[in-house]
Amino acid sequence: MVRIVHTMIRVLDLDRSAAFYRTALGLELRRKLEFDDFSLAYLGNDESEVELELTLNHGRTEPYTHGSGYGHIAVTVDDIETTHARIRDAGFAAGDIVELKNGGTLVGRFFFMNDPDGYEIEVIQRHGDYR
Amino acid sequence: MVRIVHTMIRVLDLDRSAAFYRTALGLELRRKLEFDDFSLAYLGNDESEVELELTLNHGRTEPYTHGSGYGHIAVTVDDIETTHARIRDAGFAAGDIVELKNGGTLVGRFFFMNDPDGYEIEVIQRHGDYR
Repeated sequence: MVRIVHTMIRVLDLDRSAAFYRTALGLELRRKLEFDDFSLAYLGNDESEVELELTLNHGRTEPYTHGSGYGHIAVTVDDIETTHARIRDAGFAAGDIVELKNGGTLVGRFFFMNDPDGYEIEVIQRHGDYR
Repeated sequence: MVRIVHTMIRVLDLDRSAAFYRTALGLELRRKLEFDDFSLAYLGNDESEVELELTLNHGRTEPYTHGSGYGHIAVTVDDIETTHARIRDAGFAAGDIVELKNGGTLVGRFFFMNDPDGYEIEVIQRHGDYR
């Protein structure tokens, strides 16, 4: 049986990305692999079985483009108001907290933010199917 | 503490994508939410805490574009040769199995394939840090 183990995104600056994910979301750099042409960094925490894989292509300076297809990674938190305030207080841009309802039933409360390379991150209040 | 719960991609045909992920990777449709303008489908299995979220924007027919930034989701398998043969026998295109080494040490054995919307998927032999 397969196991989903990571999502990979390409970034321009590993230190910048690692600092962002650690400060904003508490995802730590767990290991790093250096190759001639690229480096791989794996971010995670004890709550998550899956990791975020960051690829750094050495010498790349041109920003990566974001097509219309890929959306985001999503994380859940225990207290979205506290997390939202903490993230804004730390100086990161974050959208407002919004609610998604389906036929009057609350599906989720969440906000979006962007990482240093412009990838979207959804932060969701732990509730219902979002555990 | 945050938990990474899903990766979201936009697809043109939920049934087509669900069939692909079920047949090729054994990821099942767990739940589906219908809204006026879009639908959300969540794929997963008992081995994975994280899910793949598929967004269907109603009425969209234009293929989504893939920028240069987003890479892939990765899954691990117990026996990559068997999985690779099964996937090719089922008629799906899959790249050859390749090895990645780092200073003579095997990092991973894997192959790539694409889902119906062109998103890359990495299938990795369970080994070392890829559990």
